[in-house]
Amino acid sequence: MVAKFEVVERNELKQKPDQDNLSFGIHFTDYMFTMDYSEELGWHNKKIVPYEDIPMSPASQVLHYGQAVFEGLKAYKTAAGAQLFRPNENFKRMNKSCERLEMPQLDVEEAVQALKQLISIEQDWIPTGEGQSLYIRPIMYANEPYLGVRPATSYKFLIILTPVGAYYGKGHLTPIKIFVEDEYVRAVRGGVGFAKAAGNYAASLIAQSRAEKLGYNQVLWLDGVEQSYIEEVGSMNIFFVFGNKLVTPQLNGSILPGITRKSILQLAAHLGYEVEERRIHIDEVVSAAKDGSLTEVFGAGTAVVISPVGEIKYKDEVVTIGSGNTGEVTQKLYDAYTSIQNGTSEDPFRWCLSV
Amino acid sequence: MVAKFEVVERNELKQKPDQDNLSFGIHFTDYMFTMDYSEELGWHNKKIVPYEDIPMSPASQVLHYGQAVFEGLKAYKTAAGAQLFRPNENFKRMNKSCERLEMPQLDVEEAVQALKQLISIEQDWIPTGEGQSLYIRPIMYANEPYLGVRPATSYKFLIILTPVGAYYGKGHLTPIKIFVEDEYVRAVRGGVGFAKAAGNYAASLIAQSRAEKLGYNQVLWLDGVEQSYIEEVGSMNIFFVFGNKLVTPQLNGSILPGITRKSILQLAAHLGYEVEERRIHIDEVVSAAKDGSLTEVFGAGTAVVISPVGEIKYKDEVVTIGSGNTGEVTQKLYDAYTSIQNGTSEDPFRWCLSV
Ligand SMILES: Cc1ncc(COP(=O)(O)O)c(C=O)c1O
Ligand SMILES: Cc1ncc(COP(=O)(O)O)c(C=O)c1O
Repeated sequence: MVAKFEVVERNELKQKPDQDNLSFGIHFTDYMFTMDYSEELGWHNKKIVPYEDIPMSPASQVLHYGQAVFEGLKAYKTAAGAQLFRPNENFKRMNKSCERLEMPQLDVEEAVQALKQLISIEQDWIPTGEGQSLYIRPIMYANEPYLGVRPATSYKFLIILTPVGAYYGKGHLTPIKIFVEDEYVRAVRGGVGFAKAAGNYAASLIAQSRAEKLGYNQVLWLDGVEQSYIEEVGSMNIFFVFGNKLVTPQLNGSILPGITRKSILQLAAHLGYEVEERRIHIDEVVSAAKDGSLTEVFGAGTAVVISPVGEIKYKDEVVTIGSGNTGEVTQKLYDAYTSIQNGTSEDPFRWCLSV
Repeated sequence: MVAKFEVVERNELKQKPDQDNLSFGIHFTDYMFTMDYSEELGWHNKKIVPYEDIPMSPASQVLHYGQAVFEGLKAYKTAAGAQLFRPNENFKRMNKSCERLEMPQLDVEEAVQALKQLISIEQDWIPTGEGQSLYIRPIMYANEPYLGVRPATSYKFLIILTPVGAYYGKGHLTPIKIFVEDEYVRAVRGGVGFAKAAGNYAASLIAQSRAEKLGYNQVLWLDGVEQSYIEEVGSMNIFFVFGNKLVTPQLNGSILPGITRKSILQLAAHLGYEVEERRIHIDEVVSAAKDGSLTEVFGAGTAVVISPVGEIKYKDEVVTIGSGNTGEVTQKLYDAYTSIQNGTSEDPFRWCLSV
């Protein structure tokens, strides 16, 4: 790879965290990619610099009006070197988020190039244990010091990196319990649910806290209009297995269009499953869990990859999914998907990009 | 007033902007109030410091997950000195916003005390022209450098100040044109519409841009469920005058409970108008504007105080309100309200707090 962006070197490299004890999002690597946007110059000042604090005006618009979007993807260390999983998809989605929040567009190719250069410099930060990876967090935020409510005229874009451990040791998936939220609403059509807008996450915290207090791991969100149709789970999209058929809620403007979701749909079809995207009523899920026609449920997202669901609570009903353990389809998809990501099996869809 | 919080003085004071040319939210005063929150110490490090940039970690949660709320109120220079308009109401509302976003509570009395001390130091920044004031912006944001989606464990609270001009010269109100938004949604019950959450404002920008492109000043938001009931306008609540009766949408969880709204309801009743809070269908407004029973419409919020509405566009219908000019009730409420704020008339409700 030919270096393209200027690199401002740091004097001393950090000590890397213990690979056996990685937790999510606490340790950051030595460098980050950064660029600035202004109306006159467009994106400029593109470089890789030491990871460090950034001076922020107390009037920066992001602090007041939440004009900020982010992305999340991963780099893996494979036998053939570092590789990225579908990075173009993330920057394309970021552009959709930016469009909704009236923020400037990225050049997707250039962003991927910057990311590749950054990862190649930070290769040694990619942890190599089973299920481990380097989590990549691109963000963009408004940094104009101005209190008028209108799109900012200046922005910062950053890519920061944090090594992350496996959610599950040794590929042994542990089913989670989910709580169906019927009071708080994450998003509604016409809103910003389809965007990875910063404010969506702050708005979701209270429901997550309540679910945890009740002994559940995650919130299952219902639609904002009828509060009856399944949307997604925490930071994952959701899949239902009816026998040999994989069903997930269709995209509707309030659901985040997950890249894992999209990839799992493709992979499952490739593996011979019937796949369907449609509206799914919570009552259907509860009764199908009871009569046994719903055999498996799992969440899917970049951080966890695939997370089996063993129990669902909706109002006064608590239903167990299948045996309450990880189902066969879930396990098969998890194995097939992760082995593409970590390079131990073929990549039929050319999802991986080597650095 | 007895000084209470430590003041870190700046070496040199800034030059104040030209009073005749004040625009909103660009010039900031010499000092700001700041304090920090941690789980161990609660709110601490309370002091008045020079207004300047703050170092921010690239992993600060506010940048990623939008955990940030704000407030807006004003200080006026009156014959009897500087005074604040209902500051306790703002900090109480901030606490409601914080509760929804799982952020720590403020001590309202202490926050008012801090504000009074800051204003007394910055008195000379309060512009004295007609309709001018010092706009006060308290904000709180999550500054923990951590990428997990959960309530942050550390926060910063700031109060910054910016001198602002009159929206209207010499009390001459200019009617605005509003565009009824029937696609984008600002907020829905179960969401964060009632909170001054940063993310609400980023989410609203696209509709405002569209309205402006179509030649309208502001967006009128409809409810998120049926997209039929009136919620509010831009950064204002909205009032309808039917003859001698003042009607405004009732609070429902998605409308921001404006302090101007609350105060206008009280003042109007005091002045002998009948007031009502209820659901208002957009069709009712359109037909009442046509048959003449709806005589006036105005928006009400801290920044503009009262803003008459002369025209409303909903889908293919464009209706003129009354004569299209500022109505009698609107003008009367504006005069009565602003003369309480600037101290030229009595304050029957004890809304003003002298510094
Ligand atoms: C709300 C939400 N839903 C779903 C997902 C899953 O998306 P992806 O598969 O692209 O990670 C995420 C994030 O990653 C998310 O934040
Ligand atoms: C969305 C929104 N609605 C209404 C208002 C009016 O509230 P207040 O009268 O407290 O200024 C504001 C803000 O000030 C606002 O941001």
